[in-house]
Amino acid sequence: MRMVDLILKKKNSQELTGVELEYIVKGFVSGEIPDYQMSAFLMTVCFSGMTYKETAALTMAMADFGDRADLSDIPGIKVDKHSTGGVGDTTTLVAAPLVAACGGKVAKMSGRGLGHTGGTIDKLESIYGFNAEQSIERFKQIVNKIGVSVIGQTANLVPADKKMYALRDVTGTVNSIPLIASSIMSKKIAAGADAIVLDVKTGSGAFMQTVDDARSLAQTMVEIGEQVGRRCVAVITDMNQPLGLNIGNGLEVKEAVEMLSGQVMRGDPLFEVCMLLSCHMLQLSGLANDDDTALSLLDEALYSGAGLKKLAEMIEEQGGDPAVIKNPEMLCRTREKIDLRAAKSGYIKGMDVQGIGMAAMLLGAGREKKSDRIDPAVGLVLHHRLGGLVSAGSSLATLYVNDDSRLKDAMALLEDSIMIGDAAPGKTPIVYDVIKK
Amino acid sequence: MRMVDLILKKKNSQELTGVELEYIVKGFVSGEIPDYQMSAFLMTVCFSGMTYKETAALTMAMADFGDRADLSDIPGIKVDKHSTGGVGDTTTLVAAPLVAACGGKVAKMSGRGLGHTGGTIDKLESIYGFNAEQSIERFKQIVNKIGVSVIGQTANLVPADKKMYALRDVTGTVNSIPLIASSIMSKKIAAGADAIVLDVKTGSGAFMQTVDDARSLAQTMVEIGEQVGRRCVAVITDMNQPLGLNIGNGLEVKEAVEMLSGQVMRGDPLFEVCMLLSCHMLQLSGLANDDDTALSLLDEALYSGAGLKKLAEMIEEQGGDPAVIKNPEMLCRTREKIDLRAAKSGYIKGMDVQGIGMAAMLLGAGREKKSDRIDPAVGLVLHHRLGGLVSAGSSLATLYVNDDSRLKDAMALLEDSIMIGDAAPGKTPIVYDVIKK
Repeated sequence: MRMVDLILKKKNSQELTGVELEYIVKGFVSGEIPDYQMSAFLMTVCFSGMTYKETAALTMAMADFGDRADLSDIPGIKVDKHSTGGVGDTTTLVAAPLVAACGGKVAKMSGRGLGHTGGTIDKLESIYGFNAEQSIERFKQIVNKIGVSVIGQTANLVPADKKMYALRDVTGTVNSIPLIASSIMSKKIAAGADAIVLDVKTGSGAFMQTVDDARSLAQTMVEIGEQVGRRCVAVITDMNQPLGLNIGNGLEVKEAVEMLSGQVMRGDPLFEVCMLLSCHMLQLSGLANDDDTALSLLDEALYSGAGLKKLAEMIEEQGGDPAVIKNPEMLCRTREKIDLRAAKSGYIKGMDVQGIGMAAMLLGAGREKKSDRIDPAVGLVLHHRLGGLVSAGSSLATLYVNDDSRLKDAMALLEDSIMIGDAAPGKTPIVYDVIKK
Repeated sequence: MRMVDLILKKKNSQELTGVELEYIVKGFVSGEIPDYQMSAFLMTVCFSGMTYKETAALTMAMADFGDRADLSDIPGIKVDKHSTGGVGDTTTLVAAPLVAACGGKVAKMSGRGLGHTGGTIDKLESIYGFNAEQSIERFKQIVNKIGVSVIGQTANLVPADKKMYALRDVTGTVNSIPLIASSIMSKKIAAGADAIVLDVKTGSGAFMQTVDDARSLAQTMVEIGEQVGRRCVAVITDMNQPLGLNIGNGLEVKEAVEMLSGQVMRGDPLFEVCMLLSCHMLQLSGLANDDDTALSLLDEALYSGAGLKKLAEMIEEQGGDPAVIKNPEMLCRTREKIDLRAAKSGYIKGMDVQGIGMAAMLLGAGREKKSDRIDPAVGLVLHHRLGGLVSAGSSLATLYVNDDSRLKDAMALLEDSIMIGDAAPGKTPIVYDVIKK
């Protein structure tokens, strides 16, 4: 087998076999296939695409290297969730404990934030003492004991993806549905869960800017799950405004605590997406047969405080200070709080969600590059949703600031990212679709 | 400027500027742009294509590095020709001296053969003493004195093309019209001629298998010429059978001598293509205003023996033994001559020209890899053209053999490459089109 022939085969839109895809991934990881052949191959995939069968084979070939968490000694169905990345998306901190409170086994490995998107591990680490770096043994112990644990990805989780992503990042080959799908799914498969709920974001703050692209990615991932024997459901949700109103690490933990305390209104995007994800996680776990049953179980767990209690347990098991549950304000104490005031009256007609995420990043809530340090307390809180009516001079958002070196840029970017117009915009759906087999 | 952004720009089918293409070529040649980015870019070009303007800019950026022959101290229009590569294509050895005999200034750098295709320099080196490695100064002296010189490409001619081609070869990015066109044209431009006649081959022995592809390549190259101020004409000619009947280095020099001695019949593919190329070379040189005038000048040079005399002069100027002109048989004396006999009677209904070229290569007439040595005397002579009527047991071809280690393979391949059927095939054109601005 020669790599150049496989590149040409894909270039001619022929389907590669599992053996051929394994050869490619194995050769690339071992260094036998040089970067310049791999990047040509990846670019071919961007143009020629891949069948579901090829994408599943690529995913499995990628998942075959490095660590694989064997969760088989946790009884029952282990469920995971994944979001393709958004702003103000604190759903894991809500859905994971809620599902566990209903009897689910949530074993989740999460990532860190980069650019305008946040990461669950960064959020959890805003809690004093919280340790996301647990061994797989300890991870399983916690799930066995309390039904939920969220840890960082192990260093050697799907090294093929790490190496491929680094190459894709510098060769213009990030934007390819089969490559995105196999990157996500290989990590989910290696992380060991039996069932996975995928939240594919679409809109100005999402990687998939159109609903069609989001649907295509969702379908591809659900198909991969089907082909490799993991039960998957994908939901397509809106990212034309931040999901929660809080953006920043401690601020988002605070909002999750508020949600689990019943303080977020039904109908709010954060509420709806948290319940939707939890609803499918419960059903995939075999704990409810339909949406209604699942939702009433979840309502019970939410309004009884069982979900919040579960979050407190998880924080405690992973070394964190559970006092944040009672007093989440402690997570976001900053030197200054500064309001961004509306320049004119009108309706919020649009949001550049990426811009809003970048504004939070400029305050220190996110990373421009991987090595950057983040400040857990800083960020911003929006006071309006899309379509909200504002009057000139009122506060659009409050910025939580410690280091004001880039405050001016953050303010300007945030102002540019919240568009005020004379007419109320049409209502954007919160959920576009649910994809399952 | 970042390479990844330029890859993405091309991937989105946007037109790159001259400055951007220069940045890419310069960065790649200097090593600042790594192979993995260049190969991703080249693959993008395979899929997204390039406008004529981009292709011309890429060509000029490539030609800007390395040696450039300045032929300005040769008075008049310097004319060159180029073939995209075929089998039995000895046109340079005919057209170059014929055009010089009519007063043209033919300053040509040629390449060596690889795989099934031959190279003019290898053919000339079958002549005892012939030296293709002349300095640019000596090259210009010869052209000034006798009107024609053919030398090998200097080692440092368009190093960008050398580096790009090596990468394309292993990344499945050879087959792209803008990349092929810029590779050819950058070398032609660096070689210094004012006017270039391009012979684009199409058919089973050619890189461009369809007339449409050949036309597209021809048009691209003529457009590049136009944009960079070199006068170009491209002809599209048939390679569904070898152009001459002789395949092998000494054998092809012999056939060129026969052609220049008036022994090849009008209507024969070799005759027609040699005259067509020469006709356009003369017109681009300003020595004739139309085909008729050009062709009557060429007839005169051919049948008076002036063209043959010019070939003898060139051989002598470059250190070769001109005795070959009188006795070309001396070029193809081998240990054995073996006939391949027809297995059945019928018409030659098709030829696999690549197979025929490979059969000659197996006898030692060509190179499998660049470092192989060739035997100038060996090769094969076909006794029939496409459509020819053969009787079982008669000789289809004579093989000129010194080393018989791969004779059996060569015989088998040659037999497979000459298809005999019951009905005469339709007549194939010799010339499909002439492209000029």
